[in-house]
Amino acid sequence: MLVADLPPEAFGDLLTESDRPPAPGAGPFVRFDSLLGLAVRRWCPPALGLPAHATAADYLARRRALGPPEATRRLLAAAGLGTLLVDTGLTSAAGHPLLPLPELATAAGAAVREVVRLESVAEALAGRAPAAADWPAALREALAAERTAADAIAVKSVLAYRHGLAIPAEPPTRAETVRAAARLLAAGPPARLTDPVLLRHLLHTAVDLCAQHAPPLPLQLHTGFGDPDLTLHQADPALLTPFIRAVEPTGVPLVLLHAYPYHRQAGYLTQAFPHVHADTGLTLGHTGARAATVLGELLELAPFGKVLFSTDGYGLPELHLLGAAQFRHALSTLLTAWQADGACTPADATRLAHLLAADNARALYGL
Amino acid sequence: MLVADLPPEAFGDLLTESDRPPAPGAGPFVRFDSLLGLAVRRWCPPALGLPAHATAADYLARRRALGPPEATRRLLAAAGLGTLLVDTGLTSAAGHPLLPLPELATAAGAAVREVVRLESVAEALAGRAPAAADWPAALREALAAERTAADAIAVKSVLAYRHGLAIPAEPPTRAETVRAAARLLAAGPPARLTDPVLLRHLLHTAVDLCAQHAPPLPLQLHTGFGDPDLTLHQADPALLTPFIRAVEPTGVPLVLLHAYPYHRQAGYLTQAFPHVHADTGLTLGHTGARAATVLGELLELAPFGKVLFSTDGYGLPELHLLGAAQFRHALSTLLTAWQADGACTPADATRLAHLLAADNARALYGL
Amino acid sequence: MLVADLPPEAFGDLLTESDRPPAPGAGPFVRFDSLLGLAVRRWCPPALGLPAHATAADYLARRRALGPPEATRRLLAAAGLGTLLVDTGLTSAAGHPLLPLPELATAAGAAVREVVRLESVAEALAGRAPAAADWPAALREALAAERTAADAIAVKSVLAYRHGLAIPAEPPTRAETVRAAARLLAAGPPARLTDPVLLRHLLHTAVDLCAQHAPPLPLQLHTGFGDPDLTLHQADPALLTPFIRAVEPTGVPLVLLHAYPYHRQAGYLTQAFPHVHADTGLTLGHTGARAATVLGELLELAPFGKVLFSTDGYGLPELHLLGAAQFRHALSTLLTAWQADGACTPADATRLAHLLAADNARALYGL
Repeated sequence: MLVADLPPEAFGDLLTESDRPPAPGAGPFVRFDSLLGLAVRRWCPPALGLPAHATAADYLARRRALGPPEATRRLLAAAGLGTLLVDTGLTSAAGHPLLPLPELATAAGAAVREVVRLESVAEALAGRAPAAADWPAALREALAAERTAADAIAVKSVLAYRHGLAIPAEPPTRAETVRAAARLLAAGPPARLTDPVLLRHLLHTAVDLCAQHAPPLPLQLHTGFGDPDLTLHQADPALLTPFIRAVEPTGVPLVLLHAYPYHRQAGYLTQAFPHVHADTGLTLGHTGARAATVLGELLELAPFGKVLFSTDGYGLPELHLLGAAQFRHALSTLLTAWQADGACTPADATRLAHLLAADNARALYGL
Repeated sequence: MLVADLPPEAFGDLLTESDRPPAPGAGPFVRFDSLLGLAVRRWCPPALGLPAHATAADYLARRRALGPPEATRRLLAAAGLGTLLVDTGLTSAAGHPLLPLPELATAAGAAVREVVRLESVAEALAGRAPAAADWPAALREALAAERTAADAIAVKSVLAYRHGLAIPAEPPTRAETVRAAARLLAAGPPARLTDPVLLRHLLHTAVDLCAQHAPPLPLQLHTGFGDPDLTLHQADPALLTPFIRAVEPTGVPLVLLHAYPYHRQAGYLTQAFPHVHADTGLTLGHTGARAATVLGELLELAPFGKVLFSTDGYGLPELHLLGAAQFRHALSTLLTAWQADGACTPADATRLAHLLAADNARALYGL
Repeated sequence: MLVADLPPEAFGDLLTESDRPPAPGAGPFVRFDSLLGLAVRRWCPPALGLPAHATAADYLARRRALGPPEATRRLLAAAGLGTLLVDTGLTSAAGHPLLPLPELATAAGAAVREVVRLESVAEALAGRAPAAADWPAALREALAAERTAADAIAVKSVLAYRHGLAIPAEPPTRAETVRAAARLLAAGPPARLTDPVLLRHLLHTAVDLCAQHAPPLPLQLHTGFGDPDLTLHQADPALLTPFIRAVEPTGVPLVLLHAYPYHRQAGYLTQAFPHVHADTGLTLGHTGARAATVLGELLELAPFGKVLFSTDGYGLPELHLLGAAQFRHALSTLLTAWQADGACTPADATRLAHLLAADNARALYGL
């Protein structure tokens, strides 16, 4: 999250998963013309003392008048989060540095725990130019050191962005790995890890690390939509099935993040495999007024103990509040409709809400 | 279906398509924590004299007190089924033998007709160790004999579990088939048919058999979700398109079962091809409170004369009642909403309900 | 569109994307047994002076009594269209010639603008048997000439029907193109363009042509469902991602038509890429009572400035009225529900409706 005085265009550029400019000729508030934009205008103005649905111009003027630090505090407080699990693999957003974790904790009035982004660790290792033959051991050490330094409660893969999720089940051989490391290191900095052999080796090294903890640490995987760097159909979580089967004996929990528009596939995988979980991630914030339906689709097959809430807030504090508000509203809409239809009792609804909102995450991450 | 006094965990293990244990640490009733579990608690307790939404513990206690045979009779009677079409390729569930068909008919107070599972016939043939060169003729004979012995009204393929649905349109040559049979027979028992050449040969042999009947017998195909043996995206029925085109001239009806989450694709195929039908199968039971939406999605493109209802009940009598109750409730929800919106008349709604609930199946299977 | 006195079966055969006959044994009105058929009976009878939901028999009798020209005028007037953008690549429907554009304009009381179907131009060129070495230059000239002659405001590709959308990003080399043209020309008339090299070369030639205009002309692409000539999963617009990335620097707008059941994927692409737009096309007409949900799914990620309405009317004037009525009803249903839920204000709803119904198309096509 960043705390900065953003002009409308820069603010808007954080209201999308795209890293591209809007279509030519659009005005400064064009990014508000989406269900995500409507949802920001619904949930955020009241946190800054404006009525819901204030115009984008009025909202941004008020945000500026309060000052970004005060606006940030108010938005995060309104989100009502108890613990933030933060992927620390990104250090800036839209050219602004992200808030250091202690300051984020203070601003949010919440605990903060860290998630290690695997590819960042491997790329930092490449920057230190080890001998290729040392890559497997050095990577293992680097991951373990980063995990320990951060006291991280999970690790995360962005394989979806770097190669897509269609990978063979088994780890590459040591010889394949060393050859691929030699190619990476020969190419010189800045290393961006896109080689499928090294990505696969990284994933399995992470699984080994996670399995050494008791209980095993969860491995999160980005699946489904994201920025245009990713090719959507290659991020279908069903493509992970061979890897999921290979990991099953280790007991390492796999957490499928986001998944949209393949969230039904994610729900299926959580039903089929005991170690697979699904996190709603950025899906409920981005789909705005449609979030209840999307959450309902995930729940069609997913056992209630396997679905986790997160905001996937990144860049703007608005996205934290939005994620939380959207999740609460979507879940409440679903549960109200199901009770009206006679599909569950108030006690069932309450139990389901507690599981998804907090208890499942507490159990999975040992919070 | 089995009739046994099941402890909660064993009962729960039949309330999922997964063959895996639940996630570690879960209690004996964890399988009820899903939309399927809520639907069981909604529809089944009243059949045993308890209020809807009785707790899982109360329900199982009552089931045990009545005794499994009595509970089974009550559940099946409440399902209100006229004819059960039973795939006889499975003989046990969760380690318990399934009820013989005559006893199932008595318990259900319904007619029972048989569906021959193709892969079971081929595997039984392999167990009799014919010469590889005789495989094509012996398979043809075995299928015809099984069809006759069972007086079966359809055949069924589980290609989705054995290879996935992406197969070439045309049958393999005789030489390819014999070579593949030689490999299978050399491997010795127990033969599990996963060779894509033999699976494809089996399908086309079945199509030939079905086409010899007047009218041709339907060929059912498992598509979409199932147990973790299956890789979900390889069970998308759209992958069958080349095979569907190849079968079209024979006039053999193809029935796409389940299809979730690719049921819209199934709906499209029923619109595009005169010989393709879609059966809701286990989809409406498993998606619980979301079933009306899922059925609505199937009906977006599917002609009303092409959609069939089934319970896909397996193992538990509860799944028969559930499938029937869920179908009736989902269809009624949709039709009520469409009439309220002005999209159809009461007469249209009645006609559509009769087609889906019975008339389409009667016409297709010659009941 | 055609103006002819059609018997029920011929009328029905235009109420489906299938070019196949209905299943054997169905009556003359079987094509009305679908959500599309119910929607025709909802929206069209009032335009001919009958109550909504008149039976198919009564509707067709009334249509015949009025005479097809008068029925056509009434149906088109009821559609309330301002400008019709017509793909002129098809010249007949169900064996009847389509209405010439000036007569269509008169009947509809609307302006008509032309869209050039790329494959038709290339096939006409093949019919003139140029030397293979001249194919690239001759194609460029033929496209430009057709564009000029028609004063066309866009071009359209049916790559989905001819090969599927999975194509490499880059154009083929000149040598590859000439070799492929030689193969096509050697095969002789009638040439049907299915060669992936020539299709890809055609697309890139069209992009070059579109980029020469200021602002660039849009390129429309058929995606998603259509007649059985197409293999559904090969028409997923996500498969176009490499091509979309390659086109991005040219500034040529890409318009993804139809997209169902991959409309969420289309919505994602419009969010991710500044030059990608989505047109609801034939999706809202064909999905009948489910259209509001389908439109809602498209809008989950799509920026409001990127979604266009069209009827995709073809063959029957009923499909023009249907497309317009279904779009208006679906959008109104969504916006009413969103306001009731507190997700947007009346002003937001009005703005969104204007964008989708007209303003986006006016801006994109320079109307």
